[in-house]
Amino acid sequence: MNKSHLLSLLLAVALLLTTYKLVDTRKKAEEISQSSSTKREAILSVIHERKSVRNYTDQKVSKDDIMTLLKAGMAAPTGFDARPWQFLVIEDRNTMLELRKELKYARGLDGSPAAIVVCGDMSKVREEAPEFWITDTSAATQNILLAMEGMGLGGVWSTLYPGKERMEHARKVLNLPDHIMPLAVIPFGYPTGVEKPKDKFDANNIHWEKW
Amino acid sequence: MNKSHLLSLLLAVALLLTTYKLVDTRKKAEEISQSSSTKREAILSVIHERKSVRNYTDQKVSKDDIMTLLKAGMAAPTGFDARPWQFLVIEDRNTMLELRKELKYARGLDGSPAAIVVCGDMSKVREEAPEFWITDTSAATQNILLAMEGMGLGGVWSTLYPGKERMEHARKVLNLPDHIMPLAVIPFGYPTGVEKPKDKFDANNIHWEKW
Repeated sequence: MNKSHLLSLLLAVALLLTTYKLVDTRKKAEEISQSSSTKREAILSVIHERKSVRNYTDQKVSKDDIMTLLKAGMAAPTGFDARPWQFLVIEDRNTMLELRKELKYARGLDGSPAAIVVCGDMSKVREEAPEFWITDTSAATQNILLAMEGMGLGGVWSTLYPGKERMEHARKVLNLPDHIMPLAVIPFGYPTGVEKPKDKFDANNIHWEKW
Repeated sequence: MNKSHLLSLLLAVALLLTTYKLVDTRKKAEEISQSSSTKREAILSVIHERKSVRNYTDQKVSKDDIMTLLKAGMAAPTGFDARPWQFLVIEDRNTMLELRKELKYARGLDGSPAAIVVCGDMSKVREEAPEFWITDTSAATQNILLAMEGMGLGGVWSTLYPGKERMEHARKVLNLPDHIMPLAVIPFGYPTGVEKPKDKFDANNIHWEKW
């Protein structure tokens, strides 16, 4: 074999290797493209994957992640843009167990590394429509629950409102002033994976144009 | 130039082209990988990008997309898992304008291609806690608004509750039976882009452990 043939052979081998690598890289790019969810897919999957999580691992939730949840809460819409909300974060187990004493349904508090109490601030709602504290804090609570799901956390909306005794108890345990209305406590943490989302779709709930 | 040299030259050119293509493809793969948002990023960006959209293009919203929004609504949590909600979809301009007559803040209805009225069903809530219709439908409304944002749609929570007269008016226009409580009407469509999200974060709303 002369030098020229050797060179051609080397070039051909290099070309084959490069082409193989090209096909491989292109395949990977397509895989990434297909697995990367669009915003539409991501939000819909978070909405439908969200579930009430009452069982948590021992892992603590970082302060940064807690702040991210609270920021998500404060991005909800409010009547007259009044933003009538307050958020109380509990990480102390004793406070959670104290709360739990009179909250028979708030089983999540038994072992959650943290909890957020979502409250309405009556000094911020308009006098003619005080009930906006309820709708506005409900929307904020839902934002927090969805943020949790998207962040790999899990929590559960444990109601204080509309239970008068439950609200009174939370008010006492947490030193809430009279103008602060506790809507819900959300125990949360990293899910153990036992809870699964429910499919609650029912076409009978949909009406077109008029009832 | 003999045949051997010509072959080598051709191979070298092919190799260069393939290598160039390889580098280009790899760069694209990296770009896709970086722009593909994780679920966490996607949900947080949807939560923070959501805004009240009152101006819409002429584009109609498909029935499929409307169904997707309603399914998102029905994925919200409810007290005692009672699912006390009903959804009424309006596409008829006359009905929307009729509704608008007594709803001075529902400016979105003036030009929206569609609207969803979110209602509570009092036959489904427990007698001891009828107020769950308010919190549960508020969470469902927030799910719908977030789904809209993620789907490239925009809407606005136009309140019926807690306005007694507004609710009575909606009840009349839409033939709602007595046990159906209208919470909100959400005019929606494809945004013109004039509305921008607000940053409503305020650290003063956050409290640690106790008030």
